[in-house]
Amino acid sequence: MNKQTYLLLENYMLSCMEDSAHDKEHVYRVLYQALEIARTEKDVDYDILIAACLLHDIGRKEQFDNPSVCHAAVGSEKAYQFLIEHEFAAAYAEQVKQCIRTHRYRKTDLPQSLEAKILFDADKLDVTGALGIARTLIYKGIVSEPLYSVAPDGTVQDGENDTAPSFFQEYKYKLEKLYSRFYTARATEIGRERQRAAVNFYDSLYSEVKSAYLGGRDELDRLID
Amino acid sequence: MNKQTYLLLENYMLSCMEDSAHDKEHVYRVLYQALEIARTEKDVDYDILIAACLLHDIGRKEQFDNPSVCHAAVGSEKAYQFLIEHEFAAAYAEQVKQCIRTHRYRKTDLPQSLEAKILFDADKLDVTGALGIARTLIYKGIVSEPLYSVAPDGTVQDGENDTAPSFFQEYKYKLEKLYSRFYTARATEIGRERQRAAVNFYDSLYSEVKSAYLGGRDELDRLID
Repeated sequence: MNKQTYLLLENYMLSCMEDSAHDKEHVYRVLYQALEIARTEKDVDYDILIAACLLHDIGRKEQFDNPSVCHAAVGSEKAYQFLIEHEFAAAYAEQVKQCIRTHRYRKTDLPQSLEAKILFDADKLDVTGALGIARTLIYKGIVSEPLYSVAPDGTVQDGENDTAPSFFQEYKYKLEKLYSRFYTARATEIGRERQRAAVNFYDSLYSEVKSAYLGGRDELDRLID
Repeated sequence: MNKQTYLLLENYMLSCMEDSAHDKEHVYRVLYQALEIARTEKDVDYDILIAACLLHDIGRKEQFDNPSVCHAAVGSEKAYQFLIEHEFAAAYAEQVKQCIRTHRYRKTDLPQSLEAKILFDADKLDVTGALGIARTLIYKGIVSEPLYSVAPDGTVQDGENDTAPSFFQEYKYKLEKLYSRFYTARATEIGRERQRAAVNFYDSLYSEVKSAYLGGRDELDRLID
């Protein structure tokens, strides 16, 4: 890809970014991780991959403003329109669009091309390990959701059977299950290296919170008459 | 403390709470941890301690609306007024006020009474370990600050000499330094048990982020002509 095209796409991406969990540094990490994964794959089309990585989250603002909108669907259309307006070939714009459309976890619309699979994996790597924990917590702050839920009897819930949104719930429903779902061998390997940090963090947090409630609640009952 | 007084103070606290990093669960954890610490201290006045714990963050909303306001100063005045209006003794209201006024890290206005020192320690314990990391990250989301800063040359900053606000900067300036600053032996002990989880998390996050940038940036330079 030539420098001019890169800067054109990068500037369009920057003009679309907003909330801090999906900020531009996330986009750069996804791009860099994708290039790291691509080194171990054959016949990667880098013009498609770089464009798809740079533009994969340009529909985030629309989803943030209206949660019923899917940022992958909106973003893929925006990317297609932008590329066509800037006189890229329709076949190229279509390939980039497909990568962006299929970068989320969905039962249908799975990534088909190699570039789509690499984008998917690079994006999912950014939710693994300590980084995935950190980004999820920042997002919980943005959308005002709590760390955990407390049952009516005062027990701290571990997230496993929770229905109310919280960090523990998201960890159990989503973060914990990421590691077996990559398409490429290199992403699976990087994910595995990072997994321990996420597991340790969840275990420590749950244990700290549980023990903070445990002794204190009984002591309070004893002191209040 | 009788049940009626506890419920009066608890309801007043609940009516003052807002943002999710300083939510009511933080207040309960501080209360429970304070009672845990108090078990190892002699001659604790529980009427003062319980009231001070329940009301210690009631000035948060005022500080959130206007960052030049100190929530400890505002909260201590609100607590005093509330107690006087509800016909508690002036000497008692004054003791509770002093505990709340001195619960922050400050060069002056250090906690004097045993109850003030226990509140201070219990509140600081909630910023240790994985819990401290989690609450800080949620707060970064609320105030739209990033995980880390990137230098103009593209290097990820570790927070050590950063001036721009970020999670790494707060970790290095504040979270890392908590562990030697407790007043009570029990808080020092609990803090020490939790310290490893925080250190491991920071180390993992920094290493993941650094390695995401490292290979990818060079690869990108090679691919862009």
